Amino acid sequence: MKSKFITLQLGIKKNKTDGLLIFLPDNSYTQIISTLNKFAAAPVIISKKNISKANPKYIFINSGNANACTGKEGFDNVNKILETLSSKLNCKTHEIIIMSTGIIGRQLPIEKIYKAIINQKFNKYSSLKESAIAIMTTDKFPKYKTKTYTIASKKIHFRGICKGAGMIEPNMATMLAFIETDVKLDKKNMKKCLQYCSNLSFNSISVDGDMSTNDCVSFTTTNTIDINLNNQKILTKFLECASDFFITLSSLIVKDGEGATKVIELNVINSKSLTAAQQISRKISHSLLVKTAMYGEDPNWGRIIASLGSLNDLTIDISKVKLFINDILCFSDGIPKDAGSKKLSQSMKKNNIKIIIDLGIGKHSQSLYFSDLSHEYVHINSEYTT
Amino acid sequence: MKSKFITLQLGIKKNKTDGLLIFLPDNSYTQIISTLNKFAAAPVIISKKNISKANPKYIFINSGNANACTGKEGFDNVNKILETLSSKLNCKTHEIIIMSTGIIGRQLPIEKIYKAIINQKFNKYSSLKESAIAIMTTDKFPKYKTKTYTIASKKIHFRGICKGAGMIEPNMATMLAFIETDVKLDKKNMKKCLQYCSNLSFNSISVDGDMSTNDCVSFTTTNTIDINLNNQKILTKFLECASDFFITLSSLIVKDGEGATKVIELNVINSKSLTAAQQISRKISHSLLVKTAMYGEDPNWGRIIASLGSLNDLTIDISKVKLFINDILCFSDGIPKDAGSKKLSQSMKKNNIKIIIDLGIGKHSQSLYFSDLSHEYVHINSEYTT
Repeated sequence: MKSKFITLQLGIKKNKTDGLLIFLPDNSYTQIISTLNKFAAAPVIISKKNISKANPKYIFINSGNANACTGKEGFDNVNKILETLSSKLNCKTHEIIIMSTGIIGRQLPIEKIYKAIINQKFNKYSSLKESAIAIMTTDKFPKYKTKTYTIASKKIHFRGICKGAGMIEPNMATMLAFIETDVKLDKKNMKKCLQYCSNLSFNSISVDGDMSTNDCVSFTTTNTIDINLNNQKILTKFLECASDFFITLSSLIVKDGEGATKVIELNVINSKSLTAAQQISRKISHSLLVKTAMYGEDPNWGRIIASLGSLNDLTIDISKVKLFINDILCFSDGIPKDAGSKKLSQSMKKNNIKIIIDLGIGKHSQSLYFSDLSHEYVHINSEYTT
Repeated sequence: MKSKFITLQLGIKKNKTDGLLIFLPDNSYTQIISTLNKFAAAPVIISKKNISKANPKYIFINSGNANACTGKEGFDNVNKILETLSSKLNCKTHEIIIMSTGIIGRQLPIEKIYKAIINQKFNKYSSLKESAIAIMTTDKFPKYKTKTYTIASKKIHFRGICKGAGMIEPNMATMLAFIETDVKLDKKNMKKCLQYCSNLSFNSISVDGDMSTNDCVSFTTTNTIDINLNNQKILTKFLECASDFFITLSSLIVKDGEGATKVIELNVINSKSLTAAQQISRKISHSLLVKTAMYGEDPNWGRIIASLGSLNDLTIDISKVKLFINDILCFSDGIPKDAGSKKLSQSMKKNNIKIIIDLGIGKHSQSLYFSDLSHEYVHINSEYTT
């Protein structure tokens, strides 16, 4: 048994699917990770409470309206949706997870949504692609993926949908994802896997460095395939496969990053601590100068070095710092190396750019994927007027 | 006696002034604040040492080349310039402060500079404007200012030059400033004034959130006017005037911020701590979404609130947060207020935008000036190719 999807027309968007109901199979188990934003939306807050009470049976998603910064009315609307759904689906309200994505600060058209749910027969299932389309906001393409891996001679499966392209016009909440596997997982491994893989994927992507009020990743296991995760080697292999899938799916968001023309993989290696590596990768990936240089296909290592150096609280030994762009050494021993070479300039024309910063003072590392900053980004994000 | 300026043609830029020698008067006293970047340029590091040894007699500035990330040769070149100047000017090498601004990672054309200094007669003084022009890199206009204030019935004077427009094409070091007053200041008050005023001005402006390898503010008093700063009231008044001057001068940099069309004044008030207020103002002023919204003249308060909320380590009571744009209340009690009003939209067309975030939980506040993010910014910062 796999999860089933039904796309809905809730009337938030005009003549488009803007809702998705996911039927989680019996025996499945689901966990979520959601935004730490102080202004977390009503659906995020209520879903967190619900999942602490019971393992969910349904996930309901609406696009086009984030139901964030909407005060008491926002919470009332979530409760109304949950009550309507629970009586239709014959379950408890807290057995439903709800996610919303779209404009911040507007109330949901609750009467339209109520009627759409009431009139829905829930008898025609939708494909993964149709489901991915229903949760899009300003995404340029639907984001969905299925992948099969082999562990200990057994085929295991992952599939998922996500949406996100930055926080945009006028205020779109960034990122939602639903991921499912058939690998049998106990609560502990489930939690471990979701946290580990999210850190390497959805928490390691950067389009514009802004954190949304609605981010949520849900992870479901249908508990159908047992690969003996008590075996440490198998567990390690499983986490490798799972993180590969999470990264594959989350990379689609960077690729769709508003106006993005390039995906940049930034690896900070041999750092004294993981925290330091994370701070550095975030700082550099947020640098407008680095992002515009990438867009301009300019191997502008000086901007990366200046951004690194601006983290003056960190222990960095300048003489040990090595910077590689597309595997070409640009900076070491405190001075420029091959930075002006034709080979390097040529390599900048690729769609995927790889930056390695070797700090040379420890054993920790952090990888992060980010997009460049283009004319299109400014266009998309500035041209909305009320 | 005031400082005197001589602009120079060092041969770094083609047929343009690219050097400035400042003759600090006898009895003057000078202090500097410089970048905390780990990759601070050779001139910054040597100037810090010099000023710890002696009160400077001269300041030498070159534009067009930052002499940053240039290794041992970079330091050797600074020493060569200092030796050449000191023998010409008959002073000790450590009595000269040296600042450089321009491209990162290239060696200075030291032979040209050496010859230019040797052949210089140092007999024709330059105006403040000419001096400001000589230190420009990608600045669109020269930045200089003189201002007179009255304290305790005495006229006091400030004048200054600065340069800076972001860190740019290909790698320009951001910001240099020379400020002079005639108010008599002891070491303690000098330090206090420079730190206090820089925090309110040069440390509170943001074009792109990047910190350069070469930033340096120097502050000189000619010690000619005594206004009895032992009197607490007079000291307070003096600090007000001084910070007004620092802010006036530094605002020119925001105004010239690469491609900037607006100067945004962000006031975070009633914060629990100063650190929190600073963190919030920096986070919001660096938000690409906020910056592009300002460019698009979009009163997009949701982006400001989402950016504030993303600082999840801070104590923020959502129900107490009030957000004003151009003195119009947009958000309070956790919900939107006048955000959709025509009056608000109209007000966004102004060149100067004012944002107030009232946290309502303390007594600390922080003001910061930042620029918007325009097409022109992306254009300037991406179109350089090696």
